Amino acid sequence: MDVDRYDKGKATRVAIQGERGSFSEQAARQMVPAPVEFLCCRTFDEVFQRTTRGECGCCVIPIENSLAGSIHRNYDLLVRHGLRIRQETNLPVEHSLIVLAGGRFEHVKTVRSHPVALDQCERFFERYPHLVRETGYDTSGSVKEIVEEGLRDHAAIASRNAARFYGAKVLMERIEDSEENFTRFVLLSSRSSVSEAADKTSIVFSFKNAAGALFKCLSVFALRDIDLTKIESRPIHGRPWEYLFYLDFLGNTGEARVRNALSHLGELTEFVNVLGCYPRDATHARKGM
Amino acid sequence: MDVDRYDKGKATRVAIQGERGSFSEQAARQMVPAPVEFLCCRTFDEVFQRTTRGECGCCVIPIENSLAGSIHRNYDLLVRHGLRIRQETNLPVEHSLIVLAGGRFEHVKTVRSHPVALDQCERFFERYPHLVRETGYDTSGSVKEIVEEGLRDHAAIASRNAARFYGAKVLMERIEDSEENFTRFVLLSSRSSVSEAADKTSIVFSFKNAAGALFKCLSVFALRDIDLTKIESRPIHGRPWEYLFYLDFLGNTGEARVRNALSHLGELTEFVNVLGCYPRDATHARKGM
Repeated sequence: MDVDRYDKGKATRVAIQGERGSFSEQAARQMVPAPVEFLCCRTFDEVFQRTTRGECGCCVIPIENSLAGSIHRNYDLLVRHGLRIRQETNLPVEHSLIVLAGGRFEHVKTVRSHPVALDQCERFFERYPHLVRETGYDTSGSVKEIVEEGLRDHAAIASRNAARFYGAKVLMERIEDSEENFTRFVLLSSRSSVSEAADKTSIVFSFKNAAGALFKCLSVFALRDIDLTKIESRPIHGRPWEYLFYLDFLGNTGEARVRNALSHLGELTEFVNVLGCYPRDATHARKGM
Repeated sequence: MDVDRYDKGKATRVAIQGERGSFSEQAARQMVPAPVEFLCCRTFDEVFQRTTRGECGCCVIPIENSLAGSIHRNYDLLVRHGLRIRQETNLPVEHSLIVLAGGRFEHVKTVRSHPVALDQCERFFERYPHLVRETGYDTSGSVKEIVEEGLRDHAAIASRNAARFYGAKVLMERIEDSEENFTRFVLLSSRSSVSEAADKTSIVFSFKNAAGALFKCLSVFALRDIDLTKIESRPIHGRPWEYLFYLDFLGNTGEARVRNALSHLGELTEFVNVLGCYPRDATHARKGM
């Protein structure tokens, strides 16, 4: 996000899905300079609606997870609402065991979290078979509940930040099974200007079914030595033989070779939509293919 | 699955993840002729382990959802355990509101289900704002709990089959928001023989990073007029600049053009692994690209 977009001293309003202390909040803090004010929404639909209506400057949503895959629902919302990707960040999903301030592991009988988070800590539960798993609606929401209800025999599984936010205590860190679990978050806004630092572009396109059609579409990038960093196909429902392709490549839409590639792609497809051109996250950067 | 694989009259043992009455059970029943005996496992790891050890003839797992995307964790397990895809089926995710036998909607105050299922019924909850959402571990598990605990003021959101299995009552059907939500299930076994009816092949491959490398890989199919039906890239963790590609195409590995394409692909890649060659599900078939 361009620094010039922020009013000095005034908080930037950022919409996120779920409770405070979540991974979305953490991703937002990595991308938006402080001070930040959060607009917590129940659903992703609400996040997009409020951002489109201008109730906040931008929103931060997860778009892809290294284990669970692309979050198609959020790609759909991105296409439908016409917001642009302005930044990205790859956040490791690191789970902590969290209890009330002053709590001790010996007192914990029940562990509450979102079922996906509970599943991601299978080895932890194998190590401590006496712990009962309890399903919560949300990771950080489970910390909130335990604090609000003063549950001394409960722990929650959530991010460190959730503990900090609700004044709870981290008993153990990195209790997740896989070190290879990270989520890619993107910052979206209704502005479409592209900074010079942007070196990655995300597009979506579709074409009528024909053998070799995808091969032709990729030729517009290969012929211009443009590196791809992600490709994914998805059937368009209600239009049986057609596909949506999500493609990320390294390049700025201001470069001539990128403009030419996109114009060439336009000749071969039914539609091409630029989802955003932004600086890639260098910490977990993907190189070309 | 070939009919010859079943002993007449003897039940086929099928491993699934989660409780009976689930979507996995429904998918298994579509693919395996009765009688079927289910081996319910807590985790997907357990499903793969027990199938690999020969405790059951096959297993049925979800591999991809039209909204949530590919389930990378299950693709990983597929590669790691070396099981083969023998069949596929695309199952619409249809949620029902389920109560105790004899129960009535007027008595329902709380609705229990897996949080993903609760989220998929947002419009239902908007219509009945007096209903309290309660998080459960599993969709069919919520039906089981309500029946076992005799909860008269509770309903569960799950599949029709869960109601049938636990002797509960379906109050409303199709309460999910989207009609475009389906899950692709695959049947896996350790046998690698391919039937003549097989017309779809799934492979995974990887290559060292280089601009245009993917384009070259796709040329082996395009040059032989082989239709692709899915493509997805995924970074390989721990090996920063390398990718795994999941690709489905229409063709039988016994055909000369398919054999030649795979051999050609072998020249261009670090490894190619055939995940299975099987008859595609004609009801929601994807055509080539």
